[in-house]
Amino acid sequence: MRFTSARRLDDGVFEREFTLAEIPGILWTPASASASAPVPLILLGHPPLGLRKMYPRLVARARHCAAEGFATATIELPGRGDRPRWPAAEQAGADLRRALEAGEAVSDEIIDALILPLVDKAVPEWQAALDALLSLPEIGGPVGYSGGVISIGVRLAVVEPRIVAAALFAGSFVPRAMFEEARQVTIPLHVLLQWDDEGNDRQAALDLFDAFSSKEKSLHANMGGHTGVPQFEGDAVAQFFTRHLK
Amino acid sequence: MRFTSARRLDDGVFEREFTLAEIPGILWTPASASASAPVPLILLGHPPLGLRKMYPRLVARARHCAAEGFATATIELPGRGDRPRWPAAEQAGADLRRALEAGEAVSDEIIDALILPLVDKAVPEWQAALDALLSLPEIGGPVGYSGGVISIGVRLAVVEPRIVAAALFAGSFVPRAMFEEARQVTIPLHVLLQWDDEGNDRQAALDLFDAFSSKEKSLHANMGGHTGVPQFEGDAVAQFFTRHLK
Repeated sequence: MRFTSARRLDDGVFEREFTLAEIPGILWTPASASASAPVPLILLGHPPLGLRKMYPRLVARARHCAAEGFATATIELPGRGDRPRWPAAEQAGADLRRALEAGEAVSDEIIDALILPLVDKAVPEWQAALDALLSLPEIGGPVGYSGGVISIGVRLAVVEPRIVAAALFAGSFVPRAMFEEARQVTIPLHVLLQWDDEGNDRQAALDLFDAFSSKEKSLHANMGGHTGVPQFEGDAVAQFFTRHLK
Repeated sequence: MRFTSARRLDDGVFEREFTLAEIPGILWTPASASASAPVPLILLGHPPLGLRKMYPRLVARARHCAAEGFATATIELPGRGDRPRWPAAEQAGADLRRALEAGEAVSDEIIDALILPLVDKAVPEWQAALDALLSLPEIGGPVGYSGGVISIGVRLAVVEPRIVAAALFAGSFVPRAMFEEARQVTIPLHVLLQWDDEGNDRQAALDLFDAFSSKEKSLHANMGGHTGVPQFEGDAVAQFFTRHLK
């Protein structure tokens, strides 16, 4: 992990860009974080639109988390931003756009081709980032995961024991195979669902929530479309992590 | 409205029992409430088990609300507690118990007979209570409704314009006719659902949530069975009312 830039935001949050084996990432730590007072960490997932495009929303979430005493970090997804494209993903993306433009149902084949390789590639990268981040003296534990492509969150919740709680956004296509993995999730979950999200299958989201084996799982459904998650849900997510990471 | 008892609880909350045309009720006001500083009011709904039996849970909710600066009040439901029974309700209750004991599905007829007359009788009583409560100098507005038999909350949300926000518990049988009324609800709603509530029809609860026309509606689903609503949901309800009543 190599830091490539560092700056202090106006609210005292320390923002550092880094690269980890060619993968760009960003780390935000609250002003209070130090080697003698390490803070818990929340990994910030994001939709596959590229880190640069997502930056405004990510830094807003990071500031919110920092105000509650959490460090946050994120990395670029495979095939996104400045990272090398891979042909199968480009093809799956093109197939998806074609189906959506034609008003067709998105087939299981397209969803699998779009999501499963992304999960397979991304999850080990987030785990490698976690190794590096937890080696920093100002980052303690425990670790939470929040948002982004829900299948990545599900896989991480299954395979990464350092993640003790996850806030998931049920707003992306879910391959059928992920329902099986969902049954293996036992950590506390906080699931956001936009009830009238036209690009999202509500029943699949409810089925996925039902599949999780977590003893503590909460579903928060709201109105407002895919990007219209109400501001007060940010507070609810912060309260969830405060309960489980402190 | 005639006050029949008054006492100050250890946290400063002022508890007064009252009767209103033979209907017993309880009013709780925070220590801060006065004629020069009137407070918003939340009507506390409750399941039809009698006010005396429900008192421990009601006073806990009242204290929580008082800590946030709200007065709360509740009245006995028709045919419950010390109020006169009425034969049709007793019969519907007996039919329900028989169906449940036989492991049969509860028919629409039983649900209608159980709930619709209760709603028809209770709602005007809650409105009369509201008239009386709002005439007290220490009670201002606006007014919220929270919990209890969800069909009573739905009807109140439709017919009582002084109620500006409602927190509903999707945990009781809902007559088909109430879905039509749900479509007329437009005030902000906060709906609690216990996901694995064996005595409750999850799909009916989701359909009811879908039917509400409110632009702001949130569904919070949790694990833990009918009576296992997590403690943190009490905070979420308080935050909902703080957003809408202050």
